[in-house]
Amino acid sequence: MKTLIVFNHPYGGSYCGAILDAVVKGLKKGGQQYRIINLDQDDFDPVMRTKDLIAFAGAGRAGEDALDAVDDQVKRYKKDLEWAEHLVMIFPIWWMTMPAMTKGFVDKVIFPAIAYNMDKGKLVSRLNISRVTIITTMNTPAEVYRDMFNNAIEGSLVNGTFRKIGIDDIRWISLNGVKTVTKEQRIEWLNGIKQQFAEGR
Amino acid sequence: MKTLIVFNHPYGGSYCGAILDAVVKGLKKGGQQYRIINLDQDDFDPVMRTKDLIAFAGAGRAGEDALDAVDDQVKRYKKDLEWAEHLVMIFPIWWMTMPAMTKGFVDKVIFPAIAYNMDKGKLVSRLNISRVTIITTMNTPAEVYRDMFNNAIEGSLVNGTFRKIGIDDIRWISLNGVKTVTKEQRIEWLNGIKQQFAEGR
Repeated sequence: MKTLIVFNHPYGGSYCGAILDAVVKGLKKGGQQYRIINLDQDDFDPVMRTKDLIAFAGAGRAGEDALDAVDDQVKRYKKDLEWAEHLVMIFPIWWMTMPAMTKGFVDKVIFPAIAYNMDKGKLVSRLNISRVTIITTMNTPAEVYRDMFNNAIEGSLVNGTFRKIGIDDIRWISLNGVKTVTKEQRIEWLNGIKQQFAEGR
Repeated sequence: MKTLIVFNHPYGGSYCGAILDAVVKGLKKGGQQYRIINLDQDDFDPVMRTKDLIAFAGAGRAGEDALDAVDDQVKRYKKDLEWAEHLVMIFPIWWMTMPAMTKGFVDKVIFPAIAYNMDKGKLVSRLNISRVTIITTMNTPAEVYRDMFNNAIEGSLVNGTFRKIGIDDIRWISLNGVKTVTKEQRIEWLNGIKQQFAEGR
């Protein structure tokens, strides 16, 4: 599957950076095509401005012709999305949800006439992406994240975004307690990820 | 109570804009002091950059001395937060959670040595804010937002942010189906909000 990786972490030496490396190594091993969007390196602007709001309303009604006003960066990302069959998102969980940059990617790129069209009030994907894999890091234990913090990323990104535009095959790999687990565990996770992508899973 | 309003919507004529007006009218009627942070008008940068990550680690260890590198805007917001007793956040729910700008406010302003200090691994508020009111708009019905989308904003912002730094009195006013309810309902909501803030509730 043609894989598009959307990466967000301001520090390349982070564990998220190591995850990106593991995904890429796996894809290479499996002989798969891939592209990377590095939001931080691209200095992506995550803010929805008035022009974006107007483009949003226009694109929902009139389609691609209304996309003139969106950022050039977003137009480039549109081509990557149209190329991809598998979307991989890698980011840290901060304050129990995604960083602003990843949220801005959702707001400005999972956009009408880019990622989906409106059909009688329903959102329908216009992409070839049939699988989404979300890989997150956090220090909170998985049970606490579920019981106290409502698995917020599942609500907003898995169900509230990708399932909402009609993608069914969505995997969320949550790596919990990254700072407190052993070094061996951290290496094991990376090896598991590499293997998974090498096998095209 | 001295009230600090943090507002985020790119279109002033939005229903969120009308909510801001209602809050301000209520506070004026009640003779209360208030300040407004308008994130969009301030062109606030929500992105955590490498310098912010370094300041975050430094401020967690060494306190205010490590804040030099944060944005001047954030330093100004710090003074507003230190002044406030009641924090009001107004924003739309997009893709089941807050816009990037509001998320960036959380990432960069609910920050060590600004909003809280670290005490033996626990987060402890350093502010006089004893109450937080979050007012959101969305088109999704309340039951659907709870059952399918996990009340994501409760998980991340109510419990995952403000309760986490030790604030107990947190109210979340969720206005659902803003586009589909009657005009009378929309006006009734605004009157209720105005009244609530006039009475200092």
